[in-house]
Amino acid sequence: MSKGVTPRSQDYARWYTDVVLKAELADYGPVRGTMVIRPYGYAIWELLQAALDSRFKATGHVNAYFPLLIPKSFLSKEAEHVEGFAKECAVVTHHRLRAAADGGLEVDPDAKLDEELIIRPTSETVVWSMYKRWINSYRDLPILINQWANIVRWELRTRLFLRTTEFLWQEGHTAHATEAEAVEEALRILDIYQDVIETEMALPVIKGVKSESEKFAGAVDTYTIETMMGDKRALQAGTSHYLGQNFAKAFDVTFRDQHNEEQYVYATSWGVSTRLVGAVIMAHGDDRGLRLPPRIAPYQVVIVPIYKDDTRAEVMEEAARIRDSISKNGTRVHLDARDTVSPGFKFSDWEMKGAPLRVEIGPRDVAQNSAVLVRRDSGEKQNIASANLATFIPPLLEEIQTALFQQALDFREANTHRPQNWEAFKEIIEQGGFARCGWDGESETEAAIQKETKATIRVIPENQDPNGLKCIHSGKPALYEVILARAY
Amino acid sequence: MSKGVTPRSQDYARWYTDVVLKAELADYGPVRGTMVIRPYGYAIWELLQAALDSRFKATGHVNAYFPLLIPKSFLSKEAEHVEGFAKECAVVTHHRLRAAADGGLEVDPDAKLDEELIIRPTSETVVWSMYKRWINSYRDLPILINQWANIVRWELRTRLFLRTTEFLWQEGHTAHATEAEAVEEALRILDIYQDVIETEMALPVIKGVKSESEKFAGAVDTYTIETMMGDKRALQAGTSHYLGQNFAKAFDVTFRDQHNEEQYVYATSWGVSTRLVGAVIMAHGDDRGLRLPPRIAPYQVVIVPIYKDDTRAEVMEEAARIRDSISKNGTRVHLDARDTVSPGFKFSDWEMKGAPLRVEIGPRDVAQNSAVLVRRDSGEKQNIASANLATFIPPLLEEIQTALFQQALDFREANTHRPQNWEAFKEIIEQGGFARCGWDGESETEAAIQKETKATIRVIPENQDPNGLKCIHSGKPALYEVILARAY
Repeated sequence: MSKGVTPRSQDYARWYTDVVLKAELADYGPVRGTMVIRPYGYAIWELLQAALDSRFKATGHVNAYFPLLIPKSFLSKEAEHVEGFAKECAVVTHHRLRAAADGGLEVDPDAKLDEELIIRPTSETVVWSMYKRWINSYRDLPILINQWANIVRWELRTRLFLRTTEFLWQEGHTAHATEAEAVEEALRILDIYQDVIETEMALPVIKGVKSESEKFAGAVDTYTIETMMGDKRALQAGTSHYLGQNFAKAFDVTFRDQHNEEQYVYATSWGVSTRLVGAVIMAHGDDRGLRLPPRIAPYQVVIVPIYKDDTRAEVMEEAARIRDSISKNGTRVHLDARDTVSPGFKFSDWEMKGAPLRVEIGPRDVAQNSAVLVRRDSGEKQNIASANLATFIPPLLEEIQTALFQQALDFREANTHRPQNWEAFKEIIEQGGFARCGWDGESETEAAIQKETKATIRVIPENQDPNGLKCIHSGKPALYEVILARAY
Repeated sequence: MSKGVTPRSQDYARWYTDVVLKAELADYGPVRGTMVIRPYGYAIWELLQAALDSRFKATGHVNAYFPLLIPKSFLSKEAEHVEGFAKECAVVTHHRLRAAADGGLEVDPDAKLDEELIIRPTSETVVWSMYKRWINSYRDLPILINQWANIVRWELRTRLFLRTTEFLWQEGHTAHATEAEAVEEALRILDIYQDVIETEMALPVIKGVKSESEKFAGAVDTYTIETMMGDKRALQAGTSHYLGQNFAKAFDVTFRDQHNEEQYVYATSWGVSTRLVGAVIMAHGDDRGLRLPPRIAPYQVVIVPIYKDDTRAEVMEEAARIRDSISKNGTRVHLDARDTVSPGFKFSDWEMKGAPLRVEIGPRDVAQNSAVLVRRDSGEKQNIASANLATFIPPLLEEIQTALFQQALDFREANTHRPQNWEAFKEIIEQGGFARCGWDGESETEAAIQKETKATIRVIPENQDPNGLKCIHSGKPALYEVILARAY
């Protein structure tokens, strides 16, 4: 039996799917495009949830829950929003099944709904229908609500974690008295996303704003954080939208301000999803499988005992002692006590699953009061006195976290180019990587670039200077410096 | 403006709804029977989730996520299961909308699904379709998976938290090699439910098993915990099902045992839902609103500062100091700093919201280094030196927790009767309460009792002795001692 994966260099897409399945992160669900998140993959998501949730709460946000099912008519209330989502909505038309002649089940025609319901593709419409009820005065503002929820978008081409018919996410929906406050909120959240993705996922991001054609359907501005994956393609890791008064106007949500004047409310919305788990795999994985940053590793250390029948008792006793000493300071440690598989199998299994550190312990190690410590990121091995493990490991985990971030940053920098002409640009896009170059700000130019190269404007980065730059496609003076790339 | 609620004695159902709405626990969603869980209600749910989740994990369970949408055909694979759920399924028939002639949206007939999908009314079928893929050998067992998810059941009569078209819950789905292990698991979970509901929710439960007619559609046995609400009606707070091999047979899930023989897998499933929030309200609430057990109170202590313009600074400074000293030991404390409402408004607001303790602090208190401490459960007030608050409060919160449990227990005991004849039984059911009495074990008897009195067999309690008892309805020798009551 082989636990190997397709090499990344040979077929990156297949390598990715192999890792997802063999590391038991997820599996295909029975309905086209759906996914089952298996316990190991879900544990990573739970660590990401905790990292996000604590930061949301520390900045005054509270969680709530809005209904899954939305009246069809809500979707058409905001003109751009409906354009963006109507074509990928799962529609509920009936509320009952009945026995069919063939012994199976059929839809009961008597149970047809008066108005069809859509499964939320995002919740702005249902949230703002409620905010209308809750907001009357400036005293009711701001509202800083987040929800953890499932979302359905009927995607044509799906890929585990990256794009699935159903996915899990958090979606924040905030209401404010002024534009300045709302914009500040949208940017505050972008900072939180950056912090979580860089600090916990060890993945450097580029912050900025989307071009008109790439922004959220219904937003005034979409702020984004873009990352580079191991195949040099871009992945949008999170977005935060300043919605202006668009949804307040669509749902007629006004408030009386301090001068008793009626005004429309300002809004933001923002989200990250289980797609982040896909980003971790693609950013850090190698040909032996996943490499997890310690902070989001379900098990930061896995202990693999090595024994024969006659040495089992002493090895397991010492392994358990080591486990207890390591876990005392909060390190997540797992003793792999399976008797049904060999140590060699366990080594590759935990390499596939990306556990940052492995402790091997056999009879000779027990006799010498030592153990073998193996880093997943570098493969580096060392002998270490068992008594020192508990103090040695936490700083080593931090070192691994930093090393993974630095590798990802170096990789992105090495594959970010500043082409000086259209031919150079096309070559960069063809060979993979980010092109940082001038853009004249025209949607037509953007569309032409995409048509010719499949590259899109990923982000108009903050900290940029278009002065003196020319548009890479039209040659006109550049309005913005942008990052162009092929993307997931 | 009145923040009052309908008195419980006048109209219990309306009192309940008033409390849910005025305490801002939930609101009605735009679709019939749906609910928005507002931040304060959701915070209670989060505390319950944490209490459950930590206990599940401590007993070896892991979380995962299965898809929302289930192929229609899956439902008919288990004969009883389909009977139980087919009539209340939301059915997805299309995956796209298109622009309609009237400017709105209509279902795109070209986007009809080949097979309709149902929104999960529970997940046994989709889970077991996956377990078929994951289970081959005894080495793959047990599987101890839980998921936190939303559920849709098209209920005709809905009530906020208690019965809504969509609700949130956890559902455990475990797979075992033997019947003994599976039954042990079902009972272990029942113990966890009892522990959470008694310890955290301060609500005494009666453990036992359901009668044939009340058990889960597809179960061999349904274990239940039943509670008594403030109107003396019963509420099923959680159930844990031993499913035998029913779903394994329906989805053909077998494993090779240690002797290499093929066997069907044994199963359990179990769940509690956001209904528990409704139980807390109904068990502990009074005419001034909610009374929250401290362990699941989002804010265990609320500080209400009392000041005029010239004393605001000093009072707020002292209030903040008190807040910091109380929160140091982990007590959840909130300083209500709203300038837009009066202290009196805040008092009733936090009484409505059931905060267990209120600290009032005004200029005179500041001068005397003291504060006024008010218990929500008893209304008891006392002056206390500010310096002593932080050490005084934690044991007081435990005292309140115990007092609420004791009140609920006393109430249940006072309203549990052992009628000796049918007339007495009917009177008890009419006036409200639990009737503990003999039952001959016949479904016909059970149906007749329900038809005449609307009372159902809530639970066949553990620790019972039917010896010498006669069936309350048929007069035949009792097979079981049962608890009968009208129920939510």
